[in-house]
Amino acid sequence: MEGSLLTPQSSYDPQVCIGHRIINETIQLKLKECLTHIRTQLDNVVDFWLKHSHDTVHGGFFTCLGKDGHVYDEMKYVWLQGRQVWMYCRLYRTMGRFCKPEILEAAKTGGEFLRKNARVLGSSNPWKCAFCLTRDGRAVKVQRSIFSECFYIMAMDELSRVTDDKDLQLEAEQMMEQIIYWVRVDSSGLGRPSLPGDVPTNSMAVPMMLLCLVQQLTEGREEAVTQKYKELGNWCVEQILQHIQRGGTAILENVSVNGEELPGCQGRLQNPGHALEAGWFLLQYSAMWGDDNLQKTAINKFVELPYQNGWDKKHGGLFYFLDVDHHCPTQLEWNMKLWWPHCEALIAFLMAYSQTKKPELLERFYQIYEYTFKHFPDNDSGEWYGYLTQEGKVALDFKGGPFKGFFHVPRSLFMCECILTDLLAKHN
Amino acid sequence: MEGSLLTPQSSYDPQVCIGHRIINETIQLKLKECLTHIRTQLDNVVDFWLKHSHDTVHGGFFTCLGKDGHVYDEMKYVWLQGRQVWMYCRLYRTMGRFCKPEILEAAKTGGEFLRKNARVLGSSNPWKCAFCLTRDGRAVKVQRSIFSECFYIMAMDELSRVTDDKDLQLEAEQMMEQIIYWVRVDSSGLGRPSLPGDVPTNSMAVPMMLLCLVQQLTEGREEAVTQKYKELGNWCVEQILQHIQRGGTAILENVSVNGEELPGCQGRLQNPGHALEAGWFLLQYSAMWGDDNLQKTAINKFVELPYQNGWDKKHGGLFYFLDVDHHCPTQLEWNMKLWWPHCEALIAFLMAYSQTKKPELLERFYQIYEYTFKHFPDNDSGEWYGYLTQEGKVALDFKGGPFKGFFHVPRSLFMCECILTDLLAKHN
Repeated sequence: MEGSLLTPQSSYDPQVCIGHRIINETIQLKLKECLTHIRTQLDNVVDFWLKHSHDTVHGGFFTCLGKDGHVYDEMKYVWLQGRQVWMYCRLYRTMGRFCKPEILEAAKTGGEFLRKNARVLGSSNPWKCAFCLTRDGRAVKVQRSIFSECFYIMAMDELSRVTDDKDLQLEAEQMMEQIIYWVRVDSSGLGRPSLPGDVPTNSMAVPMMLLCLVQQLTEGREEAVTQKYKELGNWCVEQILQHIQRGGTAILENVSVNGEELPGCQGRLQNPGHALEAGWFLLQYSAMWGDDNLQKTAINKFVELPYQNGWDKKHGGLFYFLDVDHHCPTQLEWNMKLWWPHCEALIAFLMAYSQTKKPELLERFYQIYEYTFKHFPDNDSGEWYGYLTQEGKVALDFKGGPFKGFFHVPRSLFMCECILTDLLAKHN
Repeated sequence: MEGSLLTPQSSYDPQVCIGHRIINETIQLKLKECLTHIRTQLDNVVDFWLKHSHDTVHGGFFTCLGKDGHVYDEMKYVWLQGRQVWMYCRLYRTMGRFCKPEILEAAKTGGEFLRKNARVLGSSNPWKCAFCLTRDGRAVKVQRSIFSECFYIMAMDELSRVTDDKDLQLEAEQMMEQIIYWVRVDSSGLGRPSLPGDVPTNSMAVPMMLLCLVQQLTEGREEAVTQKYKELGNWCVEQILQHIQRGGTAILENVSVNGEELPGCQGRLQNPGHALEAGWFLLQYSAMWGDDNLQKTAINKFVELPYQNGWDKKHGGLFYFLDVDHHCPTQLEWNMKLWWPHCEALIAFLMAYSQTKKPELLERFYQIYEYTFKHFPDNDSGEWYGYLTQEGKVALDFKGGPFKGFFHVPRSLFMCECILTDLLAKHN
């Protein structure tokens, strides 16, 4: 796209400048349209969850919500409880129109529910959290991974920011220490047996999630805190970059701990949504530290590549899973179009554009925007569908489920609203 | 279908008798056609696995086979290793044309691979088997359930029948004792933590699988063995019948240990393929003990109901999962058409017909037969596809994967060939 009409020119030419102003006005107009639409969508999504998801008896949130918002299952998934607390707090703290008592109240009740119930009583480790709980908070299932604990930290840290409760921040930091120990020192406490054929793996989800937590725990905090997590942040980046494989032509979801490709399906797996999410985490991190090289790698490898490899040229949308050698993935849902990779793609491309002003990144954002808003939102009953067939037909019509809560949709709309607002402010 | 032309009449009427003979000839002709087709299919499927799946270096079988049979992953899943040993032995033992040295040899090598590698070294229980192994037999993953052990038993018992190796039979019976202990006395040895919200559940898979093992261990054996497992067999039947719910209008996959419906998605889940498989297990059991009531229940509740509730009236084929209250299931693959429920349905309806001669059961068999053979077999490269979209398009094009091995397809073809041969022999 070099020399495109949309590319800013450096030398002065009155004709070009007039052309520019018009182009800039065209861009501004379109960005404003996007902003208006995204604001409305965010309002709608927040309303949906405020209306349907609160458990006023036991605290916490129902997340299994049908097409029209009815509760079809009362199970409480700790990931989704933590994410909803985080999202409510973030909206309350940073967007004036959501600074409302009912949002703060709901976040606090959710936080209390988690503090009271998430940790598994009688577990060999007092920090281990359950994966799901009954409506009244009794543990049903425990996963042998770190993610319930990660979303617990996100919830507590963000809640501490709106309530100014330092105990919550401390608890978040203590649990963070436990997670770092599990990931970097000894994972045996998670309960997975050590097996001779089970090779230690660098799975994208782990360093991504930790990098997200580093940003959560340090944002706007004093220098000492930033320094405390600096080495961890750099380690996460290094671990994420190990997923660039095949001579820089693919992001693979699982690699060896030495950054080499693993054999078989596991090693060849691509998860474009995850790569894009890692992409915008890296972009944020590169901006924080002014690291231009990292920015470039993030855009070329974690934003553009997953789009190129993951976009369905026939039906549009991002595939859920792909095999880098074009074998058929063994995941039954590999060709489905899920809401969350599209949420991540919107953030990744808009952030990449906002940092570079490269018009091709904006074009890509528009393409994903168009697919996303044409297919996912339910204009009748509100919120978004989560799971479409390859052809873009709704395959599962609920609005919330065991893995879809108040998180990816509002986070994407929130992030895009912030970036668009910022872009338009700078344009004027 | 009372009074249908296909229904046998009891009173003598020359016209009707002539009509009957013609009808019988029509039925026979069609059954013969089915038999010929099924024999050819079975030969084709056996050839495919003989050609592509044998690991001549480490023993055991590759089961991740692509569309044309190429190995796309070398992982060895214990369920599928055990099933392939069982199926080879069963074919070798009972069908003349498969009584070939290469089939026996492959079964023996598979059995040796399992005996050498399946049990997890250093595990707290010497009977616990891995879920999957590396190509050379190192444990990769252990499930906290009984199914690897169940397929180990099937393999060893059937192998003992063709090799006359009593050690294998003994090992199968010893492992069976361990499984019975886990299921009926204390499951804590399986490694699942006891959690306050985790209600003990009667999942269809468990009594079904045990009933299958009872039949495996007792078939053709002396009276003492039959008696030894009689109480267990009756217990399994009782546990399976607890899944008849909603006033007899639905088979639910998970119920409480007292046979009551469980709350939420888990409680409302229907798995028509599983119910149909349980159906023909019950039919076999009822025939063995001459239990007419059980036969009737098996047909009405476990053969006809899952068809009525599970058949896709629009696109044909059996859904994978359904919610009895018509909520959308949370399983992403709920509306896909999988090969194995259709395999089970073919056996269930043909066996139900063979035991009762009710023409409506034969009609249903033809309907499922037509859908199955139109959609699943790959006439170019052999074997069957396993996973179709709701509309019947191939969604995953491999022939073998982590859950699809040499089992459901050949078992269904084998069972149907036996039943059809028997039916036609009786007709003549």
